[in-house]
Amino acid sequence: MIRHLLCRTSTTLSDGRELIYFDDTEPYSSGGVTRECHDARDLATVRPGGVRRLDPLTGEWVTIAAHRMDRTHLPAAESCPLCPTRPGRRTEIPADDYDVVAFENRFPSFTGDTGDTEPVPTTVDGTDLWPQAPATGRCEVVCFTSDHDASFTALGPARVRTVIEAWADRTAALSQLDGVAQVFCFENRGEEIGVTLHHPHGQIYGYPFVTPRTAQLLRRAAAHHGDLLGDVLAAERRAASRLVVDGEHWTAFVPAAARWPVEVHLVPHRPVPDLAALHDAERDELAVRYPDLLRRVEIFFAEAGDTRPVPYIAAWQQAPVGTGRELTRLYLQLFSVRRAPGTLKYLAGSESAAGAWINDAVPEQIAQRLRDAAT
Amino acid sequence: MIRHLLCRTSTTLSDGRELIYFDDTEPYSSGGVTRECHDARDLATVRPGGVRRLDPLTGEWVTIAAHRMDRTHLPAAESCPLCPTRPGRRTEIPADDYDVVAFENRFPSFTGDTGDTEPVPTTVDGTDLWPQAPATGRCEVVCFTSDHDASFTALGPARVRTVIEAWADRTAALSQLDGVAQVFCFENRGEEIGVTLHHPHGQIYGYPFVTPRTAQLLRRAAAHHGDLLGDVLAAERRAASRLVVDGEHWTAFVPAAARWPVEVHLVPHRPVPDLAALHDAERDELAVRYPDLLRRVEIFFAEAGDTRPVPYIAAWQQAPVGTGRELTRLYLQLFSVRRAPGTLKYLAGSESAAGAWINDAVPEQIAQRLRDAAT
Repeated sequence: MIRHLLCRTSTTLSDGRELIYFDDTEPYSSGGVTRECHDARDLATVRPGGVRRLDPLTGEWVTIAAHRMDRTHLPAAESCPLCPTRPGRRTEIPADDYDVVAFENRFPSFTGDTGDTEPVPTTVDGTDLWPQAPATGRCEVVCFTSDHDASFTALGPARVRTVIEAWADRTAALSQLDGVAQVFCFENRGEEIGVTLHHPHGQIYGYPFVTPRTAQLLRRAAAHHGDLLGDVLAAERRAASRLVVDGEHWTAFVPAAARWPVEVHLVPHRPVPDLAALHDAERDELAVRYPDLLRRVEIFFAEAGDTRPVPYIAAWQQAPVGTGRELTRLYLQLFSVRRAPGTLKYLAGSESAAGAWINDAVPEQIAQRLRDAAT
Repeated sequence: MIRHLLCRTSTTLSDGRELIYFDDTEPYSSGGVTRECHDARDLATVRPGGVRRLDPLTGEWVTIAAHRMDRTHLPAAESCPLCPTRPGRRTEIPADDYDVVAFENRFPSFTGDTGDTEPVPTTVDGTDLWPQAPATGRCEVVCFTSDHDASFTALGPARVRTVIEAWADRTAALSQLDGVAQVFCFENRGEEIGVTLHHPHGQIYGYPFVTPRTAQLLRRAAAHHGDLLGDVLAAERRAASRLVVDGEHWTAFVPAAARWPVEVHLVPHRPVPDLAALHDAERDELAVRYPDLLRRVEIFFAEAGDTRPVPYIAAWQQAPVGTGRELTRLYLQLFSVRRAPGTLKYLAGSESAAGAWINDAVPEQIAQRLRDAAT
């Protein structure tokens, strides 16, 4: 078992946003026990005032978040807002070092603070076809390390374990917030998918609705009359042709109907609804399995001759907070938009407009190459 | 009414693929009446052998088309396969000029010719969770002009009218093919969305299944107990706040819950299932409205300071050939992945993994700017 001592310290930024340190290194000090960590900036409060609207053609909520167009875009390293605060350079993290830290996004798509903004009409243009609501909820940023130039795979299992603790903590906390229907922990990596900050970090969204992908999964699970994800996991382990790793508590496989050239699902053997429900042994193994998977994807492309950082999306699919919670379970969906060295998988007419995915890669062959990737 | 005389000539390429000329210019000759147009190449037949697999988590078919990795990628203009054949340079079109031409894609994702390939098992790994079938159907390419450097907006209404005839002809023809469930005419434009050939062209897919977007729309329409698309059209015309143009037979608007920064739907007033069902007056007006919309999108970005060719997807959503045909109707979904000058709308974790779209643009403001775009 990974030795794991953690100091959790909550504080508040100058504009009222919450920030939580997760320290795993003695003397567990970023929280202010031994260091100065007061946010000395005088930040104006951002009142997003976004709305969500129901698309009558799909039945899905679309969020309109116009204020986000002004957000920070690829700052030079010396002005990275996710680095620790140093003399003369104040950042989002008012401490001169930290291990892992989570805080409310300054430019959130969803927020609990709608302030004094005008009430949002319950329909667009007074038409029942277009239900509308404020974009309430929560958006947080999680910094995985204070080292600007690191990557997730370089963290080591003890630090990854701390990230898992932070994800679990935030999942539990956001699930308790009024109006949050589902919590989504994810990492976007790479300029190819529009990442605006290079500092190693992920995000956590507390959506005010069940996401379209999960809503679809809940319909499928209800029609299946059984544990759909458990049955898929069992079938993948039985077939074995798409397995990447088969561990004590976790199994990773390329799904039979993979959409992306490189797509892997990492599924716990025990049917748990979310990261907060994982027990210690599952978290310990995950702290090894998760970076191992990321490394395999890096090696996959490096062996094909492309050693640049791999763009990927790592998405933790969790059960909704309320209705439908018993119908699904936690799993990780990891995929890359890179198709081959130097080329990306683009979503053009068939995917973007018709929803009909065409994958150039054979899942069994991708799984074989990921299995063979020496780590 | 646009003067419209058309000569339609069908021929066969050297590997057996069908090619159809749509000539609107006297002496309507590309079809071989006055010119040599025999395909003198000795092309090997491509036998794709792709499969489609049902994703148990979403209920959607995903097509696995590994052979397409070798397809032609951004050839230099002098070797463009969509230009007319010239002495010493044979292309896909065995005529020294043409107006509009449609032909079967040499590297199709779906094809009627599965040749002598081995039978595809009806499930993956013998597991009922993963139904599987050959990727039958049809993929065609439509060249809008023989001028390699033109764009759709430069064609002029008479030529656009011919393109509409070609779309309508191919929609009717593909709808008659065994196993085709839905016909999809679309244009992908711009390297930003992975377009591999710059010659002005679109594509037509005859899918062996109803596409996921349409399947979703059919479910919504059935639950609506009425003409869902007609009611949306009427509500948009009544509200007027998102209208772009309101014509005699067609209306264009930014949808209330637009997903893309620039997204416009162009809807015929008469509920027709597909392009083939449009009458002459509707086709005539469309030949003006459609390029006008494209120009407005170009002006939209040009006024913001970005005059490079606009990347866009223009997708004709048509009713399925069989079941559900009466539940939906024809409309054009036009959108750009460009968000602002020099920046793209990326689909990251929230969109790609959770299906939860966040749009930085306010539909009413986009509509206002598109209305104001002088054409």
